[in-house]
Amino acid sequence: MVQRVAVIGAGPSGLTSIKACLDEGMQPTCFESSDDMGGLWKFKEVSEPNRASIYRSLIFLTLTINISKEMMCYSDFPIPADYPNYMHHSKILKYFRMYAEHFKLLQCIRFKTSVKRVMQTPDFSRTGQWEVVTENKDGLEERHVFDAVICCSGHYTYPNLPLKDFPGIETFDGKYLHSWDYKGPEDMHGKRVVVIGIGNSGGDIAVESSRVAEQVYLSTRRGAWVIRQVSDNGLPVDMKYNTRFVHILFQLLPMNFFNWFGEKKLNAMYDHSMYALKPRHRLFSQIPVINDDLPLRILSGSVIIKPNVKEICGSTVVFSDGSRAEKVDTIVFATGYNYDFPYLPNNVLYKSGHRVGLYKHVFPPNLEHPTLAVVGFIHALGAIMPQAEMQARWVTRVFRGLKKLPSNQSMIKAVEKDTKDIEKSYIVSKLTPLQVDFVSYMDDIAGEVGVRPSLLWLFFTDYQLFKHVLWGPVTAYQYRLMGPGKWKGARKAILTKFNRMCEPLKTRKLDEQHSSITGRLVKLSLLILGGGAAAYYFHRHNPDAIPTLLSNLRPQTV
Amino acid sequence: MVQRVAVIGAGPSGLTSIKACLDEGMQPTCFESSDDMGGLWKFKEVSEPNRASIYRSLIFLTLTINISKEMMCYSDFPIPADYPNYMHHSKILKYFRMYAEHFKLLQCIRFKTSVKRVMQTPDFSRTGQWEVVTENKDGLEERHVFDAVICCSGHYTYPNLPLKDFPGIETFDGKYLHSWDYKGPEDMHGKRVVVIGIGNSGGDIAVESSRVAEQVYLSTRRGAWVIRQVSDNGLPVDMKYNTRFVHILFQLLPMNFFNWFGEKKLNAMYDHSMYALKPRHRLFSQIPVINDDLPLRILSGSVIIKPNVKEICGSTVVFSDGSRAEKVDTIVFATGYNYDFPYLPNNVLYKSGHRVGLYKHVFPPNLEHPTLAVVGFIHALGAIMPQAEMQARWVTRVFRGLKKLPSNQSMIKAVEKDTKDIEKSYIVSKLTPLQVDFVSYMDDIAGEVGVRPSLLWLFFTDYQLFKHVLWGPVTAYQYRLMGPGKWKGARKAILTKFNRMCEPLKTRKLDEQHSSITGRLVKLSLLILGGGAAAYYFHRHNPDAIPTLLSNLRPQTV
Repeated sequence: MVQRVAVIGAGPSGLTSIKACLDEGMQPTCFESSDDMGGLWKFKEVSEPNRASIYRSLIFLTLTINISKEMMCYSDFPIPADYPNYMHHSKILKYFRMYAEHFKLLQCIRFKTSVKRVMQTPDFSRTGQWEVVTENKDGLEERHVFDAVICCSGHYTYPNLPLKDFPGIETFDGKYLHSWDYKGPEDMHGKRVVVIGIGNSGGDIAVESSRVAEQVYLSTRRGAWVIRQVSDNGLPVDMKYNTRFVHILFQLLPMNFFNWFGEKKLNAMYDHSMYALKPRHRLFSQIPVINDDLPLRILSGSVIIKPNVKEICGSTVVFSDGSRAEKVDTIVFATGYNYDFPYLPNNVLYKSGHRVGLYKHVFPPNLEHPTLAVVGFIHALGAIMPQAEMQARWVTRVFRGLKKLPSNQSMIKAVEKDTKDIEKSYIVSKLTPLQVDFVSYMDDIAGEVGVRPSLLWLFFTDYQLFKHVLWGPVTAYQYRLMGPGKWKGARKAILTKFNRMCEPLKTRKLDEQHSSITGRLVKLSLLILGGGAAAYYFHRHNPDAIPTLLSNLRPQTV
Repeated sequence: MVQRVAVIGAGPSGLTSIKACLDEGMQPTCFESSDDMGGLWKFKEVSEPNRASIYRSLIFLTLTINISKEMMCYSDFPIPADYPNYMHHSKILKYFRMYAEHFKLLQCIRFKTSVKRVMQTPDFSRTGQWEVVTENKDGLEERHVFDAVICCSGHYTYPNLPLKDFPGIETFDGKYLHSWDYKGPEDMHGKRVVVIGIGNSGGDIAVESSRVAEQVYLSTRRGAWVIRQVSDNGLPVDMKYNTRFVHILFQLLPMNFFNWFGEKKLNAMYDHSMYALKPRHRLFSQIPVINDDLPLRILSGSVIIKPNVKEICGSTVVFSDGSRAEKVDTIVFATGYNYDFPYLPNNVLYKSGHRVGLYKHVFPPNLEHPTLAVVGFIHALGAIMPQAEMQARWVTRVFRGLKKLPSNQSMIKAVEKDTKDIEKSYIVSKLTPLQVDFVSYMDDIAGEVGVRPSLLWLFFTDYQLFKHVLWGPVTAYQYRLMGPGKWKGARKAILTKFNRMCEPLKTRKLDEQHSSITGRLVKLSLLILGGGAAAYYFHRHNPDAIPTLLSNLRPQTV
């Protein structure tokens, strides 16, 4: 019976893993190498080796994307109504502190303690236990034995700096850095900058630098579809489109239709061909780049889109089409991250293609006992918080023996199938092997935990809530309506999500609304025209009906 | 006969005035107080008293608005094709230099010479001449006599700082400044900032500061309609909507329809009520604010929209709804500018309501001789360059006696009518008395000069050009097609404007286009459905027609 659990890392995944352990009555001990919780979200002026890093102006870079507050919060702890929809990292950190305090997580965390090694104990076959070796800030090693381990060390830790793909980089006169080392545009004043890679980091850094730099070039091998955070009518884009209804449509209609429709809509905002952004791949073959400011920066020439870099000669960067950026001062490699679990022995992790093969992105499929899990090692068009939380709820129930995993053989088969599916659905590069579809994945793991909301049941028992769950955004609260871990605040949280969205915007009382007479006139005209047409049609086919109707309506006189 | 003309100021209006004088065979002398041309566009690290000022990141603030290159250039001198569509002020200055060099304007400019006084000569009644007193950098005064004077001293020169409307400002602990003194966000790092006024400057400064400030409040008395520079399909908004066709529609349909339609479109981008921006006035009652970045800054809470400031107590700013911004470090007054012609005697300028009453915004209506004119003293949803140029072309033809002005009485009557019309059409404040409708005004003055393009004539003589002039944006080239000052490059410039727009964006060759099979399938289905429906309808009404047709199509056998 699992009792003592080691949680490695106190970022967003670690925090919710501690909570899940406590909820299941286990004793978690969390080891955090830094002196604070928050992981990625703890901003440091200087990046530290082997630790995730964010840049100062970052509003919300989750594992890929900028997520609105209602879509990123944990399922039983809504973000305060007055917090903005796209939160600054300082606000996100504040939210983590509130979460940790409310659920009493702090006492489980040992700060400034890094995990050096995790090994199966000699009697692992019998006990399923793990030996965890930690090191505190004074370099003192300690050995612990745990019944189970949850790895939440993230996957933004190791910058991928593929210098060998850039011949001549050793001749470069200027300064080059990885986006991991980028902290703000201060150093870019009056500089000529080449940013390599049009992921979310690349786009953000290019746009921010372009406001002070002399010129920014944004080099991209494949191009990208770029979407806006401010979506139709001003809704956060994820609250608009990440709905269960859209998810159902995606399962009913062919993907090509959505590609066609979505690309049409994006090009109506700004033509991706004209803006030199259009990629070869279709819209839903890759998680799109979110960037509201990029189009104007391109139109004003402060960011120039360029193809792949061919070579570098001194201060000149030569692109694959032969064009050149001269007198370049700075090159920023926004070339993503490598992931690694250096503290785990090789035999624990199962390799499947480019991926670390994990059953449903969580459990190594080749262990004798399911007492080690990875949480938050995933990449979707959605925030990591609700996804990590869902994983942690599953993991702890598996640890407790309340849920069984399939046989190793079945799990390995499933992992291999996943790898194939990912390769088919997404333009996979070595750097994005963790992609899943947000709602499908949440529903899948929720099914394992037994907390997937039943639309049919809601339809008959709570029609108002049914409508919200069907048409509204798939917030994490939906997975607290029923089953283990049910939260009585979930229903209200779902019904009031748009209130919390609007709350921080109510900062100026609007003047008395002018009644839109024109709008009403137009509507009235349409109504009269439509009514007239209907009456005419009716009359043509039943010439006597209307006079009869009218005579019937007259007051009868005896 | 006017020969010697004084041009006051070598900004965009002054430059084109010099050129117009040269074109009409007169001898212009331009007095420029600074050491360079460009006026507003000459960026200085520190603002100088009595001189217009721009901020460092400014891309293009014309008199009100951000204008694309094809819509801002002079009519016979297109901006180079590879220049970006929204130009940085350094590029604009470069364009001015090219213009000045090409038309040999430099030799007419006396730099570092400011105009102290302009007076009618004692024999003005007979000669119409003016005495101009200048001062050079060593303080040396000089007196000149000119046959005519063109005032191009601009109207962004005197910051309007209405401190008396802000009770308690004297108790304010922090720093306050006018947008005139704002040079960039450097001083705003970690600060709490209140920006007062949501004009284009206020919006720009709020957005830019918010990227480094702890918090920015944007206070607005009336609210604003905010539009994007990146318009449908990514076209610059002015190239999309500033067309002659739209202009004709505006004259045919009631303004309420456009208000309704335009507001609907803007709210579909982001709901102006939800974003606390919605003003009481209708869309076309005020020139809208252009700001692409503001919506996301509001949604992410870094800019908070607030109502009017009621009072200031120490470091607290109290708004009219009683809410407060605490610990404010900086207040930026983006409260516009006052205009003044301090070198002109009072009897020259005619006052009409709040306005300086000028006949068609150019000629004082009360002078014995039309030998003084004001150029560039205007405010429209369009750049100052083409408008000032058109005015200068008219002015110089009036100076030469090739065009006559109406009687003083008629001009005064016209001025008074203008004042009433402006008050009716626009939400006028003391600070925006110069508003005109861009196309109407250009056409009006073009009519005076005799260069207004005739659609009818084009329809019969040059249909291709006709289509461009009707459907395309109203570029200044259209006023060089016929009449005095005709330019043989005008036709080509009009036909190639979209090429020049696209040119700077062609920076990355796109991959082989994937054929959009889905799109074609959808179109094909619609075609088949439509054809089928038509055939069915036809068949019902002519049951024999289709079999007959088919039999007629069969190869005939003898």
